[in-house]
Amino acid sequence: MPLDATLREKIAASVEAGFAEQIAFTKRLVRFPSLRGEEHAIQDFVFQELRARGYAMDRFAMDRSAIERHPGGSKFSAAHSDAPIVVGIHRPREEKGRSLILQAHVDVVPAGPEDMWSHPPFEPAVEGDWMFGRGGADMKAGHAANLFAVDALRRIGLQPAATVYVQSVVEEESTGNGALMTHLRGYRADAVLIPEPEDEKLVRANAGVLWFEVEVRGHPVHVRDMGAGANAIDAAYRIVAALRSVEAEWNERRHAVPHFADDPHPINLNIGKIEGGDWASSVPAWCRLDCRIAIYPGTSAAEAAQEIEGAVEAFARADPYLANNPPRVRFNGFFAEGYVLEPGSDAERALAFAHRAATGRELDSFTSPAYLDTRVYALYDRVPALCYGPVSRNIHGFDESVSLASVKRITTAMALFIAEWCGVEPA
Amino acid sequence: MPLDATLREKIAASVEAGFAEQIAFTKRLVRFPSLRGEEHAIQDFVFQELRARGYAMDRFAMDRSAIERHPGGSKFSAAHSDAPIVVGIHRPREEKGRSLILQAHVDVVPAGPEDMWSHPPFEPAVEGDWMFGRGGADMKAGHAANLFAVDALRRIGLQPAATVYVQSVVEEESTGNGALMTHLRGYRADAVLIPEPEDEKLVRANAGVLWFEVEVRGHPVHVRDMGAGANAIDAAYRIVAALRSVEAEWNERRHAVPHFADDPHPINLNIGKIEGGDWASSVPAWCRLDCRIAIYPGTSAAEAAQEIEGAVEAFARADPYLANNPPRVRFNGFFAEGYVLEPGSDAERALAFAHRAATGRELDSFTSPAYLDTRVYALYDRVPALCYGPVSRNIHGFDESVSLASVKRITTAMALFIAEWCGVEPA
Repeated sequence: MPLDATLREKIAASVEAGFAEQIAFTKRLVRFPSLRGEEHAIQDFVFQELRARGYAMDRFAMDRSAIERHPGGSKFSAAHSDAPIVVGIHRPREEKGRSLILQAHVDVVPAGPEDMWSHPPFEPAVEGDWMFGRGGADMKAGHAANLFAVDALRRIGLQPAATVYVQSVVEEESTGNGALMTHLRGYRADAVLIPEPEDEKLVRANAGVLWFEVEVRGHPVHVRDMGAGANAIDAAYRIVAALRSVEAEWNERRHAVPHFADDPHPINLNIGKIEGGDWASSVPAWCRLDCRIAIYPGTSAAEAAQEIEGAVEAFARADPYLANNPPRVRFNGFFAEGYVLEPGSDAERALAFAHRAATGRELDSFTSPAYLDTRVYALYDRVPALCYGPVSRNIHGFDESVSLASVKRITTAMALFIAEWCGVEPA
Repeated sequence: MPLDATLREKIAASVEAGFAEQIAFTKRLVRFPSLRGEEHAIQDFVFQELRARGYAMDRFAMDRSAIERHPGGSKFSAAHSDAPIVVGIHRPREEKGRSLILQAHVDVVPAGPEDMWSHPPFEPAVEGDWMFGRGGADMKAGHAANLFAVDALRRIGLQPAATVYVQSVVEEESTGNGALMTHLRGYRADAVLIPEPEDEKLVRANAGVLWFEVEVRGHPVHVRDMGAGANAIDAAYRIVAALRSVEAEWNERRHAVPHFADDPHPINLNIGKIEGGDWASSVPAWCRLDCRIAIYPGTSAAEAAQEIEGAVEAFARADPYLANNPPRVRFNGFFAEGYVLEPGSDAERALAFAHRAATGRELDSFTSPAYLDTRVYALYDRVPALCYGPVSRNIHGFDESVSLASVKRITTAMALFIAEWCGVEPA
């Protein structure tokens, strides 16, 4: 029962009418430097904004033991956020349509050296069609779109004719435990939409991700006796080479994995952080690596972790120095499986229709080699989990930016999708 | 005019008589955690101790501009110590003998992870013949020996019959600017003795040392687009490989360098410290390496530095990523030449005699591939600069320790050497 053309026109015009306000709201979100663990202020802001719109509100903490018991729970570390999860609940007058979760995360990745940015990372700036700022694309534009897509219906006197949960989570960039926590809290719906910056495409399949630390300890000596000592930084790099072999082997396996065979390099191992040694003239006694690797859907985090541990152990046994100083592998963040969005769902059909109406183009799908919170809903709720959002540049990099024209298009598509999926009733 | 046997016996007995006090004093020195920049308290202690013994005292600061103008001046950085240099001056009743500088440094290298020590690094512990503690061997045992060798003469009613400067310096482990500052202050003598832990041997030739930092900046991207980004940590390691080629080439040149041809690997490049990236899931945007490399006597620091810069530049030009993001090489510490102690000096003869008398063995000499403050006196004062001191284990490492029996032997040798070199007069 596609929406009639008149209603479509009205919804699109309403998104247009609210768009200046939507951009201003998105900028307010970007101004919060909501790095991991520092999302308290922004979550309070989101709470107030949802409550002001009339949503029933739920705000809750991570339940660490429940998360640790769940197979989709990622590993806690000292850096884990304790900011709350915020859920705004829309209940219709009459429950006629299909319920929906609209989810977004507020946490952002570190900005890196600020002098490499054209604009300060937490002062959003617009140049032409592009809005710059850390987290603007990933995913504060999408976060705002969740609210403003529903607002667009309200502006023309309508509201979803089914329960809609607007979920604002943390920890998407490091564990995915925020999304898991909404599942553990008991929220369920007939479909989920997460407007991550996906270039106006739908994610068909998605890699899981593991985070782990490798620590090497050595016995340093005076550099004059360097041959006798063990340089922990050099040893760490030998381990990196061993991990690159794992990466290469996993990439070879892609041929057997649906949706991943066509990507020449779907599994990326990133050595994201390194620290070692105390100063130039001592052979370094320690070195720590922070690593991130992708895994295929269908491979459990535990299986993959075992393979990594095994590879490091085997390498260390054959290395004269590491054999006596076994490196320690510790999983300290993402411990998450990937998922596949099976084609043919009503939810996807509805989104494809809305996308076509909003953009004039067919909805393409693709395989994403990065972690997505949609995995929680796909794997554990087992409902259609749609990851679809605006065109972006340089997410996680310098000068991260999002196309405002694209944000308008996807907000229109989202409003149309909500109207069709949930149905509408007078507000 | 070797000392007569009776006086030799008396001096040895006097060292023995003061040895318990000497060990207690050495332990007091070790208890000061006199890391770089944190030598204020220990230098004040040394000042008081020298003054209490009747030395005329001079205490002075680094003169940065004078150091920077001098060819032997090493590079300043934010970490450079501003602790004072302390000189105790003994003037004889009658200037009959040859003057002498007794020098030692109080700065120590970092302890590294404390849990890798058998005893806390700044709580000296004695097990059998070994005294443990960071800086105990390098070189607080020698520092104490400077004072107690002269004390041993006083204990039997004698004192040197020539000017003796007892110099307590800082920055030996990072720049050598403390020793250079005593030169710039104008102190000169007919010979210098520095009791570094040299296994009861004399340093015949000594490498110079350079410290430098290499910084790489990259343009990070989301790991999902890793191929497009540049991993600064990976790039830093490609530079390490280029620097290893320089190291290999310099080691090849040893065949043409007197005193270095027999060491299969006299030039050590140490990657002592590394830091890069912000977290696991971002391709790292930056990486910094702290490096230390040795250079042969006769090669100036500036020539060697130019060669390193040239090698990094040439490598970077040929590297697709580094060509667009040229790494920055910055010399930030040691910028020091090596030296050779030419055989045949009276000072060496006197020390050899004293050593034989104290230990019953001939004095061996060797080539040291690590920085030594003796270079200042050898290169710029052009006097015999004797580096000779006790047996040690694991200097710069965990469980650094010094042989107490050896400390007693070298203190005896030093007292005999002072008596012979300076002559003695009634105290």
